[in-house]
Amino acid sequence: MKRREFLKKGAVVAASSTLSANVFAQGNGTINAEMVSSFPTVASIIVGTAENFAENIRAMTDGDLDITVYPAGAQVGAFEVYDAVASGAFEMGHSPSYYYIGKNSANAFFTAIPFGFNTQLQNAWLLYGGGRELWNEISAPDGLVVFPAGNSGMQTGGWFNREINTLEDLQGLRMRVPGLGGEVMSRAGVNVQVIPGNEVFIALERGTIDAVEWVGPFDDEMMGFQRIAPYYYQPGWHEAGATLGMYVNQDFLDTLPADMQAIVETAALRANSDMQAEYDAANGAAYQRLIAAGAEPRVIPDEILLRFVEIMDELHQTNIDANPDYARVYENWSAFKDTAQSYNRAGDFNFLQFLYGRDE
Amino acid sequence: MKRREFLKKGAVVAASSTLSANVFAQGNGTINAEMVSSFPTVASIIVGTAENFAENIRAMTDGDLDITVYPAGAQVGAFEVYDAVASGAFEMGHSPSYYYIGKNSANAFFTAIPFGFNTQLQNAWLLYGGGRELWNEISAPDGLVVFPAGNSGMQTGGWFNREINTLEDLQGLRMRVPGLGGEVMSRAGVNVQVIPGNEVFIALERGTIDAVEWVGPFDDEMMGFQRIAPYYYQPGWHEAGATLGMYVNQDFLDTLPADMQAIVETAALRANSDMQAEYDAANGAAYQRLIAAGAEPRVIPDEILLRFVEIMDELHQTNIDANPDYARVYENWSAFKDTAQSYNRAGDFNFLQFLYGRDE
Repeated sequence: MKRREFLKKGAVVAASSTLSANVFAQGNGTINAEMVSSFPTVASIIVGTAENFAENIRAMTDGDLDITVYPAGAQVGAFEVYDAVASGAFEMGHSPSYYYIGKNSANAFFTAIPFGFNTQLQNAWLLYGGGRELWNEISAPDGLVVFPAGNSGMQTGGWFNREINTLEDLQGLRMRVPGLGGEVMSRAGVNVQVIPGNEVFIALERGTIDAVEWVGPFDDEMMGFQRIAPYYYQPGWHEAGATLGMYVNQDFLDTLPADMQAIVETAALRANSDMQAEYDAANGAAYQRLIAAGAEPRVIPDEILLRFVEIMDELHQTNIDANPDYARVYENWSAFKDTAQSYNRAGDFNFLQFLYGRDE
Repeated sequence: MKRREFLKKGAVVAASSTLSANVFAQGNGTINAEMVSSFPTVASIIVGTAENFAENIRAMTDGDLDITVYPAGAQVGAFEVYDAVASGAFEMGHSPSYYYIGKNSANAFFTAIPFGFNTQLQNAWLLYGGGRELWNEISAPDGLVVFPAGNSGMQTGGWFNREINTLEDLQGLRMRVPGLGGEVMSRAGVNVQVIPGNEVFIALERGTIDAVEWVGPFDDEMMGFQRIAPYYYQPGWHEAGATLGMYVNQDFLDTLPADMQAIVETAALRANSDMQAEYDAANGAAYQRLIAAGAEPRVIPDEILLRFVEIMDELHQTNIDANPDYARVYENWSAFKDTAQSYNRAGDFNFLQFLYGRDE
């Protein structure tokens, strides 16, 4: 039935001129839209952000734009969101761009780059440094408009069933770690495993893997990793702040009156910071509970992180050589990074250095 | 003429039942509202945030809610915004709550507290830790609703005409530094001066003062402090992220249809993060230009900051004893702080420690 629904909707929007008829065909002036998320219901803050986005839009349009949110798996899989919105089968999708580096490696930048921006600088780059425009340039050929719409904040470096002190300790270690972070670790000797989220805990329990990277304290806590892989390594060098996109089908957006288009944009940008705030409010308490439950906090040694930096620089060069889009985005991104980090270092870092750096 | 306008409007809204007639009396369905800002036009990012807020609302309401923004001085002074909106003379005001600690010392928390939150944790506290609710409880008796609507990010510790190495160096130093930061420095022996913004540079040039605290690199650069007081101290321990409020007259808000009320709220929360992103994008480049122009970067010695922490703790206790509201907000704020900072330290700080802590 789900598949039939998908196909039926796909047929309706095959010709974009009929999309308008579809979404307006409610008789009472209400425009209905459907959003697919890349996250399951258990990722309650992320899916809640999408739900709040829809609720805010209902409130701002007096119910005239009514968006139904489907978590991952309900209609399409986590990695199918981009295509599902590009095809017009669904009007919107809440998904991180780096799930689509297979389509264009430049999509990595709009979510998170290892050793890249924290949330604050990521937002500065996206909103006032040209990042958002580049993201839309990369997405437009697929008929998509995209808005920043959420951030996880600083993720966790990973959960390990043994201590990691040197690069040697990483050799052959079996770890579930996706994306560019996984590529970096693979080149450093880690045996990187691709395992769906719902099988991660079992793989760890059965000893199929030795380590896992998931999200951050709030989401990690629900997985119970500390019971099997208690060495809890910080920081999340691979994702210091991961942006989610609200992908909107361009043909659908064009059918909306201008005021409703503006409402969608501003609701997305509110969601972008709301999600970070909700994570920051939840992560601290979860972190403390994890420590109380036996998690052993550790910091990844500089020797290892410095090697990861070298590998990441090589990866950048490989992608720059292979993809002009990557080269173009990298140039903008790295120039912004050098400039923005100068004051981040002088201001924010010196402040935290005083608050946290004197004792542990 | 300005005064007459003020009085005329004051008279119209003396009875709240007439406010509705006032704002709707346009004949064409447009609701006009006026917003006063606590900042002059030269604070271009802050005033621009208010202008963007108004423009976004025009776009989202198809022009039905049309807000005119007045910078400080155009209608009322910087510190008169709260009263101007409370009285109903103006419908909205963009202002930091800590300008009003004279009305209620608890207003300090909703902007910034020395050694308090950076922007990210401030937003977490306001939006998901109870801060916003407390802020509204404090403001409601004056007929005001308030939304977080902007943040300056990490401010600068100050510009000094000599190096500051010990607490001794602060004795008798004449410095322009307002707010709680000024109170802390005064108790540490600084001769704190209250000088309006437009006279600060002249006071420094004439030698009336030795040091000044202003905002951060972007705004400081326009003042040219580096030419006279080149010792440029970080971090902004007194304001690691200062929130602006969008104060809205409750009677006015009540006259708006529910969808328009929701639009005002979401526009404010978008402005809240937009302003931070714009500052982060601008501050890095300004910081680099300031250094190139002769600013001498320095870090405030721990000995001095540790003494400031002691004094701030004493100030908290004084305010707690004197004001039950302050005590209530402090209890919520400090519990949230301890919890949220645990992961901020483990995650964000460890990340910045790796990025910035190994060489300088």
